[in-house]
Amino acid sequence: MTVATSLAEAEAADAADPLRDFRARFRLPDGVLYLDGNSLGALPLATIARTADVVTREWGDRLIRSWNEADWIGAPQRVGAKIAQIVGAEPDSVIVADSTSVNLFKLLAAGLRAQGGRSEILTEAGNFPTDLHIADGIATLLPGVRVRTVAGDAIMDAIGPDTAIVLLTHVHYKGGDRHDMRAIGAAARAAGALTLWDLSHSVGAVPVALAADGADMAVGCGYKYLNGGPGAPAFLYVRPGVQARLQSPITGWMGHADPFAFGDGYAPAPGVARFLAGTPSVIAMLALESGVDLFLEAPRDALFAKSAALFDLFAARMAALLPELRCVTPAAADRRGSHIAFRHDRAFPIMQALIARGVIGDYRAPDILRFGLTPLYLGHADVWRSVAILADILRTGEWQDPAFAVQGRVT
Amino acid sequence: MTVATSLAEAEAADAADPLRDFRARFRLPDGVLYLDGNSLGALPLATIARTADVVTREWGDRLIRSWNEADWIGAPQRVGAKIAQIVGAEPDSVIVADSTSVNLFKLLAAGLRAQGGRSEILTEAGNFPTDLHIADGIATLLPGVRVRTVAGDAIMDAIGPDTAIVLLTHVHYKGGDRHDMRAIGAAARAAGALTLWDLSHSVGAVPVALAADGADMAVGCGYKYLNGGPGAPAFLYVRPGVQARLQSPITGWMGHADPFAFGDGYAPAPGVARFLAGTPSVIAMLALESGVDLFLEAPRDALFAKSAALFDLFAARMAALLPELRCVTPAAADRRGSHIAFRHDRAFPIMQALIARGVIGDYRAPDILRFGLTPLYLGHADVWRSVAILADILRTGEWQDPAFAVQGRVT
Repeated sequence: MTVATSLAEAEAADAADPLRDFRARFRLPDGVLYLDGNSLGALPLATIARTADVVTREWGDRLIRSWNEADWIGAPQRVGAKIAQIVGAEPDSVIVADSTSVNLFKLLAAGLRAQGGRSEILTEAGNFPTDLHIADGIATLLPGVRVRTVAGDAIMDAIGPDTAIVLLTHVHYKGGDRHDMRAIGAAARAAGALTLWDLSHSVGAVPVALAADGADMAVGCGYKYLNGGPGAPAFLYVRPGVQARLQSPITGWMGHADPFAFGDGYAPAPGVARFLAGTPSVIAMLALESGVDLFLEAPRDALFAKSAALFDLFAARMAALLPELRCVTPAAADRRGSHIAFRHDRAFPIMQALIARGVIGDYRAPDILRFGLTPLYLGHADVWRSVAILADILRTGEWQDPAFAVQGRVT
Repeated sequence: MTVATSLAEAEAADAADPLRDFRARFRLPDGVLYLDGNSLGALPLATIARTADVVTREWGDRLIRSWNEADWIGAPQRVGAKIAQIVGAEPDSVIVADSTSVNLFKLLAAGLRAQGGRSEILTEAGNFPTDLHIADGIATLLPGVRVRTVAGDAIMDAIGPDTAIVLLTHVHYKGGDRHDMRAIGAAARAAGALTLWDLSHSVGAVPVALAADGADMAVGCGYKYLNGGPGAPAFLYVRPGVQARLQSPITGWMGHADPFAFGDGYAPAPGVARFLAGTPSVIAMLALESGVDLFLEAPRDALFAKSAALFDLFAARMAALLPELRCVTPAAADRRGSHIAFRHDRAFPIMQALIARGVIGDYRAPDILRFGLTPLYLGHADVWRSVAILADILRTGEWQDPAFAVQGRVT
């Protein structure tokens, strides 16, 4: 796809976009250019009606009966199976449960136990904080476990005979760098290590092929590119071949082989369902399902091609208008995610000024301006206009207003 | 309060009930007598509008900005502070997070670590399965930890010098027996053990005074008497005096002292917020808040007095009509919860036949008929009618229809 060199060309690209009808399936406020779908995805219109129906009819009218009638009880597996299609996973290998942090904990602890005497969790310096924190927490909890962090490009060489688990975020939350899942998986396997991938910035953003690329375990987030709602439940994946070897440390009743036998003794469910713990929020889970259902309607190839095209346009417009801002995201489409990041030492007030003008991206400490490129509901003209407004803010210096220096934001 | 001896007297009691106006604040389907609010609480009408607003305006229109604008980020502490009022907890001692199972795991692991060389989790045989399973799981995860189960009435005498934590469900999920929190707490404290109370069948059901009764830790459920919705988030309590000694095993970013610094190193939040892990579901959390807000409007003394009166009426009608069914719930109001349970070896098909007649209670394996008495939306006439229908089912033998023998239900 050629990169647009005028707003008219960008609009023409949108008119020819095979995904153009998806935008109308989302509620997007007037006057906003939303480039933060990698932090909180936008609201699918269908989710409004679906959530109202879950609350009013399924809960209100049918009450406890909905656990069976509406198959609430099967939702973790049902929604997991839908997500499995998006991440190239085998049948019965994905469930929706808990948060990304809790799922990381469960899989790290399970993997360490399965790895017998090996003691090392190998991960990347500057990984998303919760990934590092959870690993560090496990190292203080379980005797003999230690966390080793190396630079992202040094991971392959660092895998050794004591490496129990290689824990990596597939697409970096800040810079957007994407690891080579297949190559790292092969190196880990050759060394007898398990891999655990955090797909939070990958699922729905880039092609993921867990089964084909030989991943052992994965977790991911429901509230970014899957548009599952704020704090949507997370998912986890365990390769069928290792499921029986892994035992969840959090042996809640929903992961029991027969939860309603109400016996004292614990017996894990036969497959990945053993990683369920407590009763999940049904309202949250079904809001996520609504987002996933919409996502599944989109042709995947068109989606990822458009993501790449939006990136190229963003990068080209920045290079033209703001060459002084350095892009920290890799240029090659297969080495990055679906967001683009720039470094500026005043990134915080600049982003606040941009948000005040209706262009919502986000700031990541200490110096990153980050923009999510979500092809389901974002177009080329949106990108064109967003960069133009950013350039205007830097030209006028309006970001220097002291009001924009007041801190406090969140993913 | 005298126990009604006719439907007219039951209706008169409802007319005089200071809580009578609360029923209209719930959506309750026509033709249903709902005696399962101890499994899934009914839907507050306000929650319909609140959830729609959270989805459509806060998420849809305001998008990522709501984390600050709508104080989504403060919800775990804000809703926790409201629940603290219901369980007699100190300020800044309760948060809403995760599920009951995950919270049990966090507090058990934290308590064991704080208790140094002590190795024993002491709990009750026949405790709710997830409590036992989580404890057993920790015993297989952490070296040197063991779980000891004794009969409920033998707990006090079993606390010993190696007891790290006494883990008890305050009100038993099946029989409804209530432990003496103060006495057990005193015995535990004298022996140097910490207490961890599961309040799932207590919160909103019976008076709870965590601070006054010297509890160290507690967890509880949002989807029963608090009417927070199916699988609503759970809460956890840590006594202020022990918070600094306890370290969560699941060190997710939301429990960090400064989550948005995005540093590699973990530093726990100063108070109970260190037990937050991942990003919570906002939709689920705010639906729970709506239920808690409604609950807080009700005068607590009237609520618990009515619970006792409904119990006495239920027991009296059963004794009159169905003396062959043995009540397994203690008769003394301060020794039980807000549900009543009966034993029958054909409990399952009987309950199914009852549900088919619009009286929704629940079955707990292997032989318990359980009825939740929720004073916010249940009246004396409801109890009168429910027992009459149950008696009718047993008189006619309609429960023997083979269709009622098909299994498969859930809390």
